Amino acid sequence: MLRIECIAIGSELLNTSRVDSNSIWLAERLGEMGLGFHRKTAVGDSRHDLRELFREALDRSDLILCTGGLGPTFDDFTKEVWAEVLGAPLVEDLASRQAILDFYASRNRTPAASNFKQALIPLGAEALHNPAGTAPGVCWENPDGYPGRTIILFPGVPREMKLMWENHVAARLEAHRGAPTSTLRMVFGSVPESTLEERVRPLREKHAGLDWTILAGLHHVELLARSGDPAALAAAEADFRREHPLDLAFVGPEGGIEDAVLALLGERGETLAVAESMTGGNIAARLTSVPGSSRVFQGGGVVYSVAAKAALAGLDAAFIREHGTVSMEVTRALAEGIRARLGTTWGLAVTGNAGPTEDKDGPAPVGTCLVAAAGPEGTFAKAFTMFGTRVEMQARGASWALDHLRRTIPEKRG
Amino acid sequence: MLRIECIAIGSELLNTSRVDSNSIWLAERLGEMGLGFHRKTAVGDSRHDLRELFREALDRSDLILCTGGLGPTFDDFTKEVWAEVLGAPLVEDLASRQAILDFYASRNRTPAASNFKQALIPLGAEALHNPAGTAPGVCWENPDGYPGRTIILFPGVPREMKLMWENHVAARLEAHRGAPTSTLRMVFGSVPESTLEERVRPLREKHAGLDWTILAGLHHVELLARSGDPAALAAAEADFRREHPLDLAFVGPEGGIEDAVLALLGERGETLAVAESMTGGNIAARLTSVPGSSRVFQGGGVVYSVAAKAALAGLDAAFIREHGTVSMEVTRALAEGIRARLGTTWGLAVTGNAGPTEDKDGPAPVGTCLVAAAGPEGTFAKAFTMFGTRVEMQARGASWALDHLRRTIPEKRG
Repeated sequence: MLRIECIAIGSELLNTSRVDSNSIWLAERLGEMGLGFHRKTAVGDSRHDLRELFREALDRSDLILCTGGLGPTFDDFTKEVWAEVLGAPLVEDLASRQAILDFYASRNRTPAASNFKQALIPLGAEALHNPAGTAPGVCWENPDGYPGRTIILFPGVPREMKLMWENHVAARLEAHRGAPTSTLRMVFGSVPESTLEERVRPLREKHAGLDWTILAGLHHVELLARSGDPAALAAAEADFRREHPLDLAFVGPEGGIEDAVLALLGERGETLAVAESMTGGNIAARLTSVPGSSRVFQGGGVVYSVAAKAALAGLDAAFIREHGTVSMEVTRALAEGIRARLGTTWGLAVTGNAGPTEDKDGPAPVGTCLVAAAGPEGTFAKAFTMFGTRVEMQARGASWALDHLRRTIPEKRG
Repeated sequence: MLRIECIAIGSELLNTSRVDSNSIWLAERLGEMGLGFHRKTAVGDSRHDLRELFREALDRSDLILCTGGLGPTFDDFTKEVWAEVLGAPLVEDLASRQAILDFYASRNRTPAASNFKQALIPLGAEALHNPAGTAPGVCWENPDGYPGRTIILFPGVPREMKLMWENHVAARLEAHRGAPTSTLRMVFGSVPESTLEERVRPLREKHAGLDWTILAGLHHVELLARSGDPAALAAAEADFRREHPLDLAFVGPEGGIEDAVLALLGERGETLAVAESMTGGNIAARLTSVPGSSRVFQGGGVVYSVAAKAALAGLDAAFIREHGTVSMEVTRALAEGIRARLGTTWGLAVTGNAGPTEDKDGPAPVGTCLVAAAGPEGTFAKAFTMFGTRVEMQARGASWALDHLRRTIPEKRG
């Protein structure tokens, strides 16, 4: 199999919170072709470091995908260093020069002298047209002394890199296409990572031929199985659906608990309204991020203040004072109130305290999360305790509330 | 200066969308100490690839920070390969064995035999206690044959890695502390990246001694300037505040337009309610993510359906039918309605169409975003056109709405 490595060039990738999204996107495209990186490196704008890295890469990889360092400024020298390492001069590519002139003409601007540096291409390599910017890419096959090696240089701007991949690079890799790998992605609700790991171990061991990964994110824990054999993945999926019917919330390449809730209610022709205090809009934002959610989700209240709880969900201020803003009574009343006000099948409410400061006179300890789901058969409430930062608690509170609703729907309750 | 490199171990870092957040966090901590990585590498769970990479790293770096591969399973062998490369045996560390026993006892569970593999430490290296998990870290100073080198192995779980850095590693690097670099972070509202780049070029050129980065994210565009000279950063900040008083929404290491709006209204002793259709809870979620937001933000309605617009913001269904759900009239009425209902100083409303499907009979083309801010001096409305995916439009719609409110506040209108 082709040994492929990724080199991302730019000091900003080392010293700020700038995520190298290019290599993630390229890894996904390669995965679709049954290929993959064996190594990814990020390196700064240092000629010395680039020289060393390029030499190593030529020794260990068949295909080298490089992003960044093709701009017009003094700290862009990816092409220069590759030309030096491979002992080739840089020569002006006339089509690239013309493309730069055209790019500026279309914007009624004149290129600076430094822009023409971008038209220089190592002798023996091929320029790749950039339809969205001034930096052409480079494809260098079988450079002198390195038969069988291919080096591809992409601009660092994600849009330019992606267009160049689609227009010029993907087709060249067709001949190397490997066995495509499929992924079974399973999203679990209301189960912490460590518990899930224990609980699913028997099935992971039964399906030990699959490549398993468990990922804990802000919204849920997911289990990924990868294999070149779709039947093996289907067998694993069937086992998980049979043995974990409640914990397993959603199966699919994208989506989460919100998609599971919307699909379930949609199938039943039912509707939903929410009243969010602690989660402050997170449940609504998650639901409305799903296209077509308006068939099920009617809206709701972000009932942060007592006034909002009264005005939007119809609670009596004296009732709130009597029980406290974070109480099962108020949470149940919010779920029932918003359901009545919007005339939906279900009303879902959350109260709690996401911190960060522990308020001794406050309504509840940091981490308290109370959830109530009001539906045709009554109101089902549950208390959770959460950990983490404020933003983590708000996101997880939204997930747990949605999952509580999912588990409350009659056929799920079993 | 200390040559530091980062090695992130795990096949999931190469073949899924798993972002290596550990190296980003470590880079920030190093930056605060005036240190930084010269290289970051991600590599899969392959003994051969690890062996090759560890040998290279010993040749080029003084300090090697490794994350991942310390777990109990068959694909965790970071310590084994380091021990092999450096010719040292693995020996059981009694304190680490006891820590594993204690960890399981505190959870009323019994460790599996494989867990004790985690207590093995290379001879000559030191175990670092893991307060949050079963995998101890490793600190290996001056290994045989490599005087002056330090290797630190962290667990891949971010929380465990961070605690280990704070408890055991940060203090060891104190002696190497370099000139600290400070960052000036400026968040801009309602200005696309390319426009901002043009608009701020004169000041970037005036302050050419700073290290500039422009980052376009889902919520805003930010401009970062880094320098070892705090006075140079302060001068740049003063210039930006004077020359871009409206576009510059927020200055600070963390936070965005929502923080700017909350601070501005908080200073004025004013309150805010929202009525969100297109943004579906995104504005509320952004505001409530800020600690202490409840002093300003009272809540609001996610008014996705006509019924919700009527029940939560008091609009008349006939009025909505007459003007259309996505119309300036309805948007203004929503802002005024939610303001009246919650008794706040300001009401902010958004309607629009975030797609993804173009509905010919629908209320408005995909990308339409109408915003209204109702306040003491009347209601100010504005129409925007957006591009991108549904989630991008909802996030940007929230940013533009918040920034519209910010620009509507009297002294900002100046």
